[in-house]
Amino acid sequence: MRMKMNLDADRIEATLDEVLPCEGERPDALSSAMRYAACGGGKRIRPKICLASAVAAGGRAEDALYPAAAVELLHSYTLIHDDLPAMDDDAERRGKPSVWKKFGEAVAVLAGDALQALAYRTAARAPRKAAEIVEALGEAGVGVVRGQADELAGPAPGLADDFVVRHKTADLFVAAAVTGALAGGGSAEDVARLRSFALNLGVAFQYEDDLLDGDGTLPREEAARRVESATAAAIAALAGLPGDTEFLSQLAISLKGRTA
Amino acid sequence: MRMKMNLDADRIEATLDEVLPCEGERPDALSSAMRYAACGGGKRIRPKICLASAVAAGGRAEDALYPAAAVELLHSYTLIHDDLPAMDDDAERRGKPSVWKKFGEAVAVLAGDALQALAYRTAARAPRKAAEIVEALGEAGVGVVRGQADELAGPAPGLADDFVVRHKTADLFVAAAVTGALAGGGSAEDVARLRSFALNLGVAFQYEDDLLDGDGTLPREEAARRVESATAAAIAALAGLPGDTEFLSQLAISLKGRTA
Repeated sequence: MRMKMNLDADRIEATLDEVLPCEGERPDALSSAMRYAACGGGKRIRPKICLASAVAAGGRAEDALYPAAAVELLHSYTLIHDDLPAMDDDAERRGKPSVWKKFGEAVAVLAGDALQALAYRTAARAPRKAAEIVEALGEAGVGVVRGQADELAGPAPGLADDFVVRHKTADLFVAAAVTGALAGGGSAEDVARLRSFALNLGVAFQYEDDLLDGDGTLPREEAARRVESATAAAIAALAGLPGDTEFLSQLAISLKGRTA
Repeated sequence: MRMKMNLDADRIEATLDEVLPCEGERPDALSSAMRYAACGGGKRIRPKICLASAVAAGGRAEDALYPAAAVELLHSYTLIHDDLPAMDDDAERRGKPSVWKKFGEAVAVLAGDALQALAYRTAARAPRKAAEIVEALGEAGVGVVRGQADELAGPAPGLADDFVVRHKTADLFVAAAVTGALAGGGSAEDVARLRSFALNLGVAFQYEDDLLDGDGTLPREEAARRVESATAAAIAALAGLPGDTEFLSQLAISLKGRTA
């Protein structure tokens, strides 16, 4: 299992390398910034969920490589734009200068824009159900922006208190699982099971983040309770899938106990 | 002919209205900014090229409505981001405050991001060849950003002097024509003809813009000569198409003589 996921990790990196622009002899700032952001040592949780969802749906991981890379490109672009001075104004990301700090604001806006375009272009290359995959990705693409806008605007009256949490993190987890399930040839029921898995995993992930950062809006006890119940709901949603779900259930358990 | 294109214009507006977020009882800034940008009185040249290309390829305009809306959404997002203080720093667009001036920089970044996501989601709904349509749109989506980055970086050694021009305007014209041709069921030859038409039209359009603004890098005489030759090449490329090409050739002639 561990060796298999290492192989998958290598294939994710190789696919990202294939679709990202070459830097060439005279590297241009745009291509350099795109690679700096997308190849900067992320944990690749979303593409791994995508490949594992194809397998869980009874298909092959390799059929989900383009959707997996697409979800990661989309994630990378959101981080670049979130860090901008007009947004969260973060000068650092993963212990290195953020893209705008290193390349300037204009290049950061453009590199994010180009990575988003590249994400959809890459998803469209999926060997099957490409249109449905792009539509699921686009739905998540709108959702994460909505989540970021709601967070900037502050709490809205009448909005459920986990609405922002759901959109902000869970939408890309859901996109990873749904596009993987579609690429793997899953039935409508399999897609629904994996959607439910990812939605709950995303909620657990975000509350765990709040616990780690100590900046959540909920009391710690309540946040911890929600991590537990969302993780349990995620694992329960995997029941009935035709393929191997061990990676996904292990992932849910390991994310719950993570320390960073 | 005129009545037909008016009907098409109505259908373009209706499709944009259908896919854009509703503002609801309590309008949120993100949805308002998206509608402000996308429904702000553009000439809709790109979606009209898309619908007319479906017809020129022998198909029906209505099959190209989603790709047409998608190209316009992509165009709208590029205008929002181009106007940002970190980019061209334009406080006005079409005689009204630009999006960042009216809604703030953060909302402007996010509204552009959401419009881009919505563009691909919309393109994926094309009734045929949706994957190819999204790939063509994504290619243009990367190209326009590359064009903007090259313009900001200034002239590069060894780059053809119309390289920037081509990317900046022609890529979205090409995307409109190619996605329309695909949606209309055009053959590979038809798609190639319409690609050539749109590439030349885009080049003519940009040089004409430079003449109108008086800010081109070429002498006026040379720019005017290039407008003439690119327009002629665009019209010549329409020969051999199975459907009605009158709208496209008239468009090429009218853009040449435009005054704004």
